[in-house]
This record gives sequence, structure tokens and C-alpha cells, in this order.
Amino acid sequence: MIKAYAATDLGAKLTPFEFELPSIQPDEVCIAVDYCGLCHSDLSMINNDWGVTQYPLVPGHEVVGKVVEKGEAVTTFEVGDVVGLGWHCGYCNHCQYCEDGDKNLCAEAQGTIVQRHGGFAEKVVAQAQSVVKLPHGMNPATAGPLFCGGITVFNPLLQFDISPLSKVAVIGVGGLGHLAIKFLKAFGCEITAFSHSPKKTQALLDMGAHHVLNTNDAEAVAQASGRFDLILCTINVTMNWDAFITTLAPKGRLHFLGVPLEPLSFDLTPMLFKQLAVSSSPVGSPANIAKMLEFAALHQIEPIVESFHFDQVNEAIEKMEKGELRYRAVLHF
Amino acid sequence: MIKAYAATDLGAKLTPFEFELPSIQPDEVCIAVDYCGLCHSDLSMINNDWGVTQYPLVPGHEVVGKVVEKGEAVTTFEVGDVVGLGWHCGYCNHCQYCEDGDKNLCAEAQGTIVQRHGGFAEKVVAQAQSVVKLPHGMNPATAGPLFCGGITVFNPLLQFDISPLSKVAVIGVGGLGHLAIKFLKAFGCEITAFSHSPKKTQALLDMGAHHVLNTNDAEAVAQASGRFDLILCTINVTMNWDAFITTLAPKGRLHFLGVPLEPLSFDLTPMLFKQLAVSSSPVGSPANIAKMLEFAALHQIEPIVESFHFDQVNEAIEKMEKGELRYRAVLHF
Repeated sequence: MIKAYAATDLGAKLTPFEFELPSIQPDEVCIAVDYCGLCHSDLSMINNDWGVTQYPLVPGHEVVGKVVEKGEAVTTFEVGDVVGLGWHCGYCNHCQYCEDGDKNLCAEAQGTIVQRHGGFAEKVVAQAQSVVKLPHGMNPATAGPLFCGGITVFNPLLQFDISPLSKVAVIGVGGLGHLAIKFLKAFGCEITAFSHSPKKTQALLDMGAHHVLNTNDAEAVAQASGRFDLILCTINVTMNWDAFITTLAPKGRLHFLGVPLEPLSFDLTPMLFKQLAVSSSPVGSPANIAKMLEFAALHQIEPIVESFHFDQVNEAIEKMEKGELRYRAVLHF
Repeated sequence: MIKAYAATDLGAKLTPFEFELPSIQPDEVCIAVDYCGLCHSDLSMINNDWGVTQYPLVPGHEVVGKVVEKGEAVTTFEVGDVVGLGWHCGYCNHCQYCEDGDKNLCAEAQGTIVQRHGGFAEKVVAQAQSVVKLPHGMNPATAGPLFCGGITVFNPLLQFDISPLSKVAVIGVGGLGHLAIKFLKAFGCEITAFSHSPKKTQALLDMGAHHVLNTNDAEAVAQASGRFDLILCTINVTMNWDAFITTLAPKGRLHFLGVPLEPLSFDLTPMLFKQLAVSSSPVGSPANIAKMLEFAALHQIEPIVESFHFDQVNEAIEKMEKGELRYRAVLHF
């Protein structure tokens, strides 16, 4: 039996839970979990915000651990390899998007915690195609958040050809936003952080932001008029989007990485005159996760985490809900 | 004195009007107008929809005519050249966007009918940088609509790297939409036309559309789920955008070429899962107008127009307002 932590009902606190691991398929690996990050999507799944949760739910999709078993068709991993697993734990591997290297857009992509048990457990099973080895020298204790939060902010930089000359703003500096700033610093971009928490200002400047503005200061937002090539929005509350659209330079893009539950609403006229876009994207492909890990290792980019033992998981969740984590929780056995 | 047709007040019928042409600047040319297309933006300006109209207003920004005078600094045109002029009649020519070939995004771009007199006149003056020669063999009697309607639909095909393998839908098949279909046919794309007028179906198939769907048929829209890489929306009324977003393939884009006066509103969740974008753009640069004209000449792409004498201008406007033009009006002296 596998020991785990599960929500047994909608919105419930996590409690110890045991389950039988199914025998692995030829294309799968079994990972013994050493560390697992806590992501806002875990909370969304606990609360069934997307209507796809099956209880008991074992959350956790920022896994780092060791391969302890592999299916007979798996040639890319050996038992003992230190690997990570993110939001997706499998793909169809034959559709146009899988073939083109966009596995994260595969319509049959399987969520690690969607109707199966995730990484808040001693072991987790995933298709080998969805698992990526940690580069040599990367700290496994902090790497977990790269596999969901990290790739979510890194992938748009690849998708939209962000260059060192790009001027990029990040709205919301939590688990995702702080990683965005670290990646953008290594990209050489001009970085503006929008935070509603003035207490974070010095930390954000130290992290690499060139400018820190208060998200709720309409005047500060107005003064940034016409400045940004890309805005990465990592928050999921509704803001005055028209005001942020005004801060885009011609050909700029307001890109959402969190999904506000209310419909998005904005005026199209300034979008037309400046050829602007509003867009969104989900995590990234395993190939791009591998590129991100290599880039992070080269530039010594490491998530800033708070460590919790798995039996403190509810404490970690509560701190995330209050916005008090600096900047991501990682659980360990 | 120059003979012209002008709206002397908000929403007024056009009436004969005379004005003194200012002497031209060193970087300008004077064009004797042979033909001028009628665009929906002329109507928006007559009605001061954008709050920038100065009366009396001489509309007209799809001009074709002959250069009759040129400033001393103009080296690219000779008197007698057959040329066209679109929405913009001048640029700053030194900002980042002008230098990068995106003059249409220049913040100081001057509108041909914004606080100056346009092409519903015997002569019009414009910066030589904004004027483009007609390729050899192009019919001047039908070329006018290429200079605003044409470039508005052609430019996104360049901006977003539309390829022969792209699946493109066009919402609304009037002046802009019919040109989009003609260009897309020459691009080799799979073309779906959304029209609210079933009477147009055969004409749209003949023009090159592979599929014609009724814009107001929710079931037809639903059946196109996940199909399009690009939707060019040429209408300016509010639709069920969520339904059209559902018809986008992963990495797809809903692109607006007309601006609905109401704010745009849609659900972001499907945008995230499929990495979608909603965007807009204004006309195109003179460099891209020249590319479009060359492409149109090569592929014998010609706007389908109804001809009106300038003294029938109010009749043409009325027909446009009723949606009865097939597909663009061109005025001539």
C-alpha cells in the first residue's frame, strides 16, 4: 500500500490515505517521491473549481524523485535516475500536436491529478514520455516547482520569441511570478514587476526586476503607457484589463497564465490601433521542460521555496491561500 | 479651387464642396483622383464614431489616381505615375516602428481623412512615403479598395505567418471579407466563410471558399469545433465570441479587423488549454501594401466592385449601410 495525503471530499483538509498502486504499463515509470511542490491548481482541484475532480483526490504535480521501476518499453530511463513530473503524466503521442513537439496541447493529455493520484504520495506512476531527468547538479529539494510553475512562465518566452531586447511585465509575484522574474533576468529583458504587496519591493529588485509597481496604483499603471512587449499575468482575480492593455507597446501581448473565473472583458479599439493580442497558454511540452531545466542549471535559477514535511501539508495550503508563501511550498517525506 | 463632396455636419448627406488645396511640402505628392473606394470607416468618420472628425469632412481613403505634382525632395515618383493612397497619408518616418517597417503602427501616423480632406475630391495631397505605385497591368478602376480593405485583410496573413497549410475562417463577407477569401485562395489555405446571408453562398464558393457556414447558425458554428488556425472577423457587431473561440485549433487566433463598439467579453479557460489568442490590427505598412499589390497582380486578384459616379455618392453610402453592395463601391469622376 502507498501512503499518501488526500482530500476525501470537496474543499476538505488533506488527511492520510492509503491506496494500492496499479501495476505499471510497458510505457510507464514509477517514481518514488522525494519532494513535491504545492501549486494553486492543487487547491483548484481540491475545491473542484473545474468540475473534473474525483474524490478521494491525492494532489501534487510538481514531483521530484527517483525512478524505482520501469515498463518493458521504456528505454530512456534507468532505475535510480532523478527525475521530475509536472501537470501532465501522459499524452497520446501520435496526434499532430504530439508529433510537432506541442504535447502540452494534445487533446488527450492526461493530468497527473485528474482522475488519478498525484505526487502527495510515496510513489507516483507516469508515462515515461512525460517525465524529465534533472540536469547534473540541480538541487532536487527546490526543483519541483519548475515542473509546473516554472514551465508555465518559461514556455511563453519560447512560444513568443522573447529576446533580450523585450520589455516584459509580470503581474503578481508568487510561485509563478518570482520564477518569471528569474528567467527574464537570465534572458536579459527589461523587467517590471506589478505586485500588490509593497513589502516585496526590495526582494523583487534583488531578484532582478528593474521596476516594481503597485498593481493597485492606477497612476503607476497609467505611467507605464505603451511600454511592454509582453505582460505575463499570473493572478486569477479580475483587474482593470483596459488599463493594463494601455501599457502594451505596438505588437504587444497580454498573456494569462492564471484563469480568472469571470469572463474577460476589454475594449478592442486600442488593440486594433497597436496590433495587440490577449492570449493564454498551459504549462509546456516535455521537450521545453528539458530546455528550461538546462537553462535553469546553466544560470543557477532556483525556485525560492519554503519546506514543509508532508504532515504539515494543510499548514502549507493555508499559507498559500493567504498569499504568505515566499514563494512556493515544497513538501517532503 | 478643388471640387469635392463633404459632410458638413454629423451624419449629414454628402454635398458638393470646394476648398483651396494647400501648397505641397517638399516630401509630398499631389494626386489627381481618378477613382476612390467607399469604406465603412468613411461612414464611421461621417458619424464621428471615434470623436476625431472635423467638419466639413471630405471622406475617401481608397484613392487611385495620377501624380500631378511632387515636392522637391520626392525622388520615388514622377508626374504621371499611377498610384494609390490608403488610410494613412503620412508617418513620422523616424520612430522605432517606422524604422522597423511597421509604419502603420507609428504613433504619429496621419489619417487621410482625419482633420484633413480625403479622396472624394479632384485632388488629394499625401506624403510620398505613404503612396504606392500600381503594378503594371493592374486595373485602376477596381484597385482602390486594395489600399484600405485589401491591406487590412492581407497584412495579418504576413504578420502571423499564414501558410498554405493554414485553415482560415472569415466572419462577414463584404468589402473586406471577399478580398480575404480571394487572397486566402491564392495562399492555398482551407477557407471557411461565415456569412449571415445564405444568398451569397454560391458566390462565395465560386470565389474560393471551401465551406460556407451561416454566422447565426449556432449548430454550424459548434460543428466547426477545433478547426481554425485563424479567424478573420470583419464585422463590427457583437457575436457569441465564446462559440467562435471554440472553433479555433490549438495555437489558433481570433483576429478582429472591425471594432465592435461594445467591449469584447469571453471566457479565458479554453484560451488557456489550447494556447489561443484574440487580437486586432490596423491596415498595413506601405511596404506591405506594395507586396500585396504585386501578389494581387500576379494572381489576378481584383476587388469585386460596383461603380458610382461621384454625384451618386449618397446612393452608394445608403447601399453600403443596407449591406447590399457586392462587395465594394468605387466612385469616379
